[in-house]
Amino acid sequence: MAAQHVLAVDLGGTKLAMALVNRNGRLAYRKHVSVDTSSAFAPVKQIIAWAHEFVGPKRGSSKIAAIGVAVPGLVRRNGTVWAPNLPGWEKMPLARRLSAALRVPVIVESDRNAAVLGETWRGAARGKTDAIVLMLGTGIGAGILSGGRLVRGAHELSGCAGWMVVTDAYDVQAQRVGQLESLASGSAIAFAAKEELARGIGGLLEMLPPDSVNAFEVAEAARRGDVLSIEVYLEAGRLLGYAVANLVSLFDPEIVVIGGGLARASDLFLDALRKNATERAQPISAKQVRIVTSNLAGDANLLGVARLAWDIRKTHK
Amino acid sequence: MAAQHVLAVDLGGTKLAMALVNRNGRLAYRKHVSVDTSSAFAPVKQIIAWAHEFVGPKRGSSKIAAIGVAVPGLVRRNGTVWAPNLPGWEKMPLARRLSAALRVPVIVESDRNAAVLGETWRGAARGKTDAIVLMLGTGIGAGILSGGRLVRGAHELSGCAGWMVVTDAYDVQAQRVGQLESLASGSAIAFAAKEELARGIGGLLEMLPPDSVNAFEVAEAARRGDVLSIEVYLEAGRLLGYAVANLVSLFDPEIVVIGGGLARASDLFLDALRKNATERAQPISAKQVRIVTSNLAGDANLLGVARLAWDIRKTHK
Repeated sequence: MAAQHVLAVDLGGTKLAMALVNRNGRLAYRKHVSVDTSSAFAPVKQIIAWAHEFVGPKRGSSKIAAIGVAVPGLVRRNGTVWAPNLPGWEKMPLARRLSAALRVPVIVESDRNAAVLGETWRGAARGKTDAIVLMLGTGIGAGILSGGRLVRGAHELSGCAGWMVVTDAYDVQAQRVGQLESLASGSAIAFAAKEELARGIGGLLEMLPPDSVNAFEVAEAARRGDVLSIEVYLEAGRLLGYAVANLVSLFDPEIVVIGGGLARASDLFLDALRKNATERAQPISAKQVRIVTSNLAGDANLLGVARLAWDIRKTHK
Repeated sequence: MAAQHVLAVDLGGTKLAMALVNRNGRLAYRKHVSVDTSSAFAPVKQIIAWAHEFVGPKRGSSKIAAIGVAVPGLVRRNGTVWAPNLPGWEKMPLARRLSAALRVPVIVESDRNAAVLGETWRGAARGKTDAIVLMLGTGIGAGILSGGRLVRGAHELSGCAGWMVVTDAYDVQAQRVGQLESLASGSAIAFAAKEELARGIGGLLEMLPPDSVNAFEVAEAARRGDVLSIEVYLEAGRLLGYAVANLVSLFDPEIVVIGGGLARASDLFLDALRKNATERAQPISAKQVRIVTSNLAGDANLLGVARLAWDIRKTHK
C-alpha cells in the first residue's frame, strides 16, 4: 500500500519541529524539541531517531513516502547545507546522510523558500504564482516566488531582505547584520526598548528584569497601553513598510505575507507597515498587492517542505 | 533561401532606432529617427515603412525572418502595450498591427527586459543566468534575469527600481516618480545642479543658460573640474550604490550592468556606486557580484529584441 504521509522537518537554530503531512496538507503526529547542538551531527541524529518510528526496516516497508527538511541557511546545488547558527554546519551533506540512514527520498530546502512554498500551497498565498513571504524573527529574510518559480539567486542567497537599505541610519550593528535587520527585527525591537529603558524612559517595561525584555514582552506591554512599547513597534512598522514597498516595486507580487515569530505581534505594526508600503511603492503595483499576516501559525516551513517531499516522490516513482 | 536577418526596433519616448541583426548579433543598416507622436498610430507607421524595405510582397519572399520591438512601457499578456510617454498608447495592439501589415512573426517586449536579454546575449553579462541591468536615464528601471528567466511580476511591472526607498528624503517629486528616481536619475542630476546654481553656488555651469543644464552638461563640467558638478554625481553614485546593494541582497545576481544614457557618465559615479553597494549588500553576495558599465553603446535593447525575434522564428518554423 502506498504511504499516506511524508515526514516534514523544520530545523531552526534552536527549535526542531517535525510532523507527518498527508497529500492535502493535513498535519499529524506533530512534535517540537530543542535542537541538540552538542555536535554537528547531533541534529541529524535527532531527525533520524524520530523518522525511524515511521520508516520500516526494509525498502518498501516505510510508512512515509519521503522526507522534506527546512534548514536555517542555504542549500548548495551539490546538496550540502551551510547554516551559520548550527555549529559545524559549513558543508553538511544533510540529504545524503538522511537518505543513507532512512532509505527514503529526501529533499532539503532553505527555510525562506520553504515558507513561501507553504504559503502558496496552504496559506494566505494559496494558488498564487507571484508571492513573497517576509520572515520577521530574530533575523529578517524573504522567500520569493515569481512566475511560479523560486527566485534563488546565483549562490542560493536571494531574499536577504534584512540587508536592505531603507533609511539613513548606519552603525556597527547595521554593518554586521544588515540595516533593516538592525532596526526592525525581533532583536532590534528588544534592543530599542532596552535602550529607552536605560535612558530612564520606562513605563510598563521597567517592571521586568532588563535581560528578559524581548520582542514579545515589548508587544505585551504595548497591548497594555505602554507608550514606549507602542512607539518601538510603530517605528519598526514604518521601516518594514519601506522594505515591503521596495519588494513590491521590484517584484510586482500578487501578495506579501508577513511570517516568522514577529507575525504574532503584527497587530502592533501591520497598519503602519501597510500605510508606508502603499505610499512608497510603484503605484500600480501598490494598488493591486495584498499585504497580510500568515495564518499558518508557524507551520509554513513544514508545509512547504512537505509539498516538496510529495513532489519528489512523484519524480522517484 | 532562409532569411539572414531579423529586424530589431527600439522604440523610445522620443527616439526610434532600427537595425537588421544576424544570428550572431551583428548589426547592419542601422537607422535612428525621431518618434512621430502626431498620432497614436504614427510610430507604428514609421516602423512599417522602414520594414517594408526588407519585407517582400508575398509570404515567403521576406528578407527578414522576424521582427522584435522594444517598447518604453509594459507589454500585457494579451499583447497590448501601455507606454505612458507615447500619446494614445494605453492598449496599443502593436504586435498584431505589425504582423498584419508585414506578414512576418513579431515579438514585442519591454525595454527593461530587452536590455537584460541584450546584455546576456552579447554584452557584459554574456552567458549569465542571473543578471540585472539597471537602466539610468530620464527615469530609472531594471531588467532582471534570475535562474535564466525574466522576473516579470504579476502585472509585468517588476523592476521599477526608480521607486526604491534608500534614504530619508521625501518630497512631491519622490511621490510622483519614486524616491530613487527623484534623487539619482538624469533629470534629478540636472535638477540638483540647477538648484545649486539658483542658490548662487555656480562654478563652470554658470556660463550656460539655465535651460540647457542637463545631465550631460553637468558631466562635462565635472570632467573639467567643476566641484559642484562632481559632487552632484558623487551623491547620485552613493544613492545608486544603496539601490544596487538592495538589488544584490534581494536577487543575488552574478552581475549588475549599468545601462541607459547615464552610463556614458559612469566615470563620474561608478566608483562611488561600487563602494556603497559593496559596503551595504549582503556580504557573501557582495563579494561575488560584478558591477560594470554596459559596453553595448546603447544597443542592448536592439540586441535583446533581436534575440527574441530569432527565438520566435524557431518556434514558428
